[in-house]
Amino acid sequence: MRAVDVIRRKRDGLELSREEVEAFARAAADGSWPDYQLSALLMAIFLKGMTPGEAAALTGAMANFGTRYRWDDVEGPKVDKHSTGGVGDKTSLILAPLAAACGAIVPMMSGRGLGHTGGTLDKLEAIPGFRVGLDEEELRIALKTIGVGMIGQTPTIAPADRKLYALRDVTGTVESIPLITASILSKKLAEGIDALVMDVKAGRGAFMKTHEDARILAESIVRVGTANGLRTEALITEMEVPLGRVVGNSLEVIECLETLKGRGPKDLEDLSVILAARMIRLAGLVNSDEEAEAKIRKALTTGAGLEKFRQIIHQQGGDARIVEDYSLLPTAPRRTTIVAERSGYVTDLHAEKLGIAGMMLGAGRQRAEDHVDHAVGILIQAHLGERVAGGDIVLEVHYRDESTLANALSLLREAVIIGDELPTKREMVLEVVQVPA
Amino acid sequence: MRAVDVIRRKRDGLELSREEVEAFARAAADGSWPDYQLSALLMAIFLKGMTPGEAAALTGAMANFGTRYRWDDVEGPKVDKHSTGGVGDKTSLILAPLAAACGAIVPMMSGRGLGHTGGTLDKLEAIPGFRVGLDEEELRIALKTIGVGMIGQTPTIAPADRKLYALRDVTGTVESIPLITASILSKKLAEGIDALVMDVKAGRGAFMKTHEDARILAESIVRVGTANGLRTEALITEMEVPLGRVVGNSLEVIECLETLKGRGPKDLEDLSVILAARMIRLAGLVNSDEEAEAKIRKALTTGAGLEKFRQIIHQQGGDARIVEDYSLLPTAPRRTTIVAERSGYVTDLHAEKLGIAGMMLGAGRQRAEDHVDHAVGILIQAHLGERVAGGDIVLEVHYRDESTLANALSLLREAVIIGDELPTKREMVLEVVQVPA
Repeated sequence: MRAVDVIRRKRDGLELSREEVEAFARAAADGSWPDYQLSALLMAIFLKGMTPGEAAALTGAMANFGTRYRWDDVEGPKVDKHSTGGVGDKTSLILAPLAAACGAIVPMMSGRGLGHTGGTLDKLEAIPGFRVGLDEEELRIALKTIGVGMIGQTPTIAPADRKLYALRDVTGTVESIPLITASILSKKLAEGIDALVMDVKAGRGAFMKTHEDARILAESIVRVGTANGLRTEALITEMEVPLGRVVGNSLEVIECLETLKGRGPKDLEDLSVILAARMIRLAGLVNSDEEAEAKIRKALTTGAGLEKFRQIIHQQGGDARIVEDYSLLPTAPRRTTIVAERSGYVTDLHAEKLGIAGMMLGAGRQRAEDHVDHAVGILIQAHLGERVAGGDIVLEVHYRDESTLANALSLLREAVIIGDELPTKREMVLEVVQVPA
Repeated sequence: MRAVDVIRRKRDGLELSREEVEAFARAAADGSWPDYQLSALLMAIFLKGMTPGEAAALTGAMANFGTRYRWDDVEGPKVDKHSTGGVGDKTSLILAPLAAACGAIVPMMSGRGLGHTGGTLDKLEAIPGFRVGLDEEELRIALKTIGVGMIGQTPTIAPADRKLYALRDVTGTVESIPLITASILSKKLAEGIDALVMDVKAGRGAFMKTHEDARILAESIVRVGTANGLRTEALITEMEVPLGRVVGNSLEVIECLETLKGRGPKDLEDLSVILAARMIRLAGLVNSDEEAEAKIRKALTTGAGLEKFRQIIHQQGGDARIVEDYSLLPTAPRRTTIVAERSGYVTDLHAEKLGIAGMMLGAGRQRAEDHVDHAVGILIQAHLGERVAGGDIVLEVHYRDESTLANALSLLREAVIIGDELPTKREMVLEVVQVPA
């Protein structure tokens, strides 16, 4: 099979055969097609799309050309949650311990932050000593010992995705539903899980800006996951404003610990509980949605989730004393504030602007190779719908570097809108997308 | 300007600015964008097209990033003809000397054969000693001395085209009207000509299979050439059956000499005269189409064209004795024939099949790096519309290698159709495409 013939067929809008799709995935994994052919095909796929069958075949092939974990020797249902990314989206650090505390096996493979969205690995690495680079055997031991491990993508997991992701980034082929689907799910399949709850974020702070776009991605993920033997469902959740009250790695770890202690912001607690409940329901650990939520709530209120998080930190080499002593986490040397210019309600808090401001402060990455400052971030003192008087602090900015502060502050001032009318409350979960019956 | 932003804009169907198009052409010429970005943009252009303005800007930029000849010190109008390629299409060897004999300056830059179509350079190189690799100064001397030079593309002429052509070949992005237009015209602009007659072939033996497709390309070339200050017109000509009565390099040289001696096949003579006449008309050397044709016919009948061809051979290091002694040209060691299986008219002679058979014999190239055997080829003893008896020779095959003969013969047998009805005579020139008044 010649690469140019596969490219021509996709270019002409024809459906590729399973063999052609697999040849593409193999070539991306082993370099047997040159980059210029991979990128021409990526652009043809971007513009001509893929059928559900093609997307499913690509996803499976990308998972198979590389290490695919098997946890047959670890008892219990393997389940994960994955988010398309948002601002202040830190639910993984809460729901992974909660689900594991309820008997789920959670081999969670996460990514790093890029652009305005954060990444679970960056948050975990704010904990002194925490190692996200567990190898397969270390992860196996973690799963056997405490039922959960939180790691990064290894070089042998879905190498085709690694290659294609890098090419897509520089060839204008990122925003393709089948390619996004294959990228996410190839790694999830390689994790060796039985079930996956997808959190597809919709709104200004998300990759998908509208509910409609998010639904298209969610449906694609559910369809392709299911076609590859993965029990998959997706929640489309709100991402117009930041989730919780902090943005920035060290600050987010604290907020997660507070949430696991029952003192977290309601939106973050609720979403974490909802997602964790769906995980154990999809994993078959409970028989109803009500039972699932009750069980997760119990793990929260009894402190079982907090204890599990302590175990995770300990298991992965982190300093578990941070659970009680937040001062052991990195702290930014300087603080400043954004205050309300008038009295009224916080009628808007633009998630993407907050995310970009956080990135400018050093909490995130403009480019994949950028260094992250775990200490810096933004505290939301007055969140959406809260009443402020003129001069009240709306945002508290924890920063290190004076040189980037001015731009970040200017963006933060734009992000905050004070008005007279109480904004309408938005639903956290916009829609649940499941396999059509 | 970032390559990825240019790619994204074209991907989204937006019109690129002149600066963006020029950045692309420069990057192709100097390697400042990696191949994977060039090929992603090529695919986006293939699928989204280019406006006339974009195509004109790309063509001009591809000509300008490289050597662009100027012949200010050579008196007379500079004019060329270029063909999109056909089977038995050898008019260049006839019309270049005819036009030059009538006062045109012809700095003709041609290509090599690929696939089923031949190339002018291969035909010229069938002449012992003939050098197509003249450098700029050698070409200048040729133009000053005899008014014509027939050369190949040099490495410094339109290097962007060289790069993009190679990438297009392996990324399924060949058949794009703006990219074909830019490829052809960038080299013609770099030649330093004032006027160009394009021979856009239409039919089974051509790149463009239908008159309609050929018209789209012809109109694009006339529009883009004109926009770049080149007086351009295009003839759409018939390529369902081979032009003339031979296919194969050495044999075609002989047929051209015969034509210049007034003994050539009528279709070849007529088309060569028509194209040469349009060249001197477009060059402003005559005041009417009638005068143009009369002048070219005179150069043919007086032997001035033949004498000019002799001068070309001599000027470029070839053995001019071949003009009288064809035995000095390479000759194939073996011959065989295809005979008519029944009596009737030759109702079809499939140009593409003849071309591919010729390529199989060694007269052409399957890949650009293949070696060409100048001696081999096919003589058409009974052409379209000619009457044969059963057992009459239709094709005479001059070959060297037994191993490829069977396949070539089988294709040639398919190419010949004998029927009872005289086929309708086809027009040689289907349409003339000029700048809209």
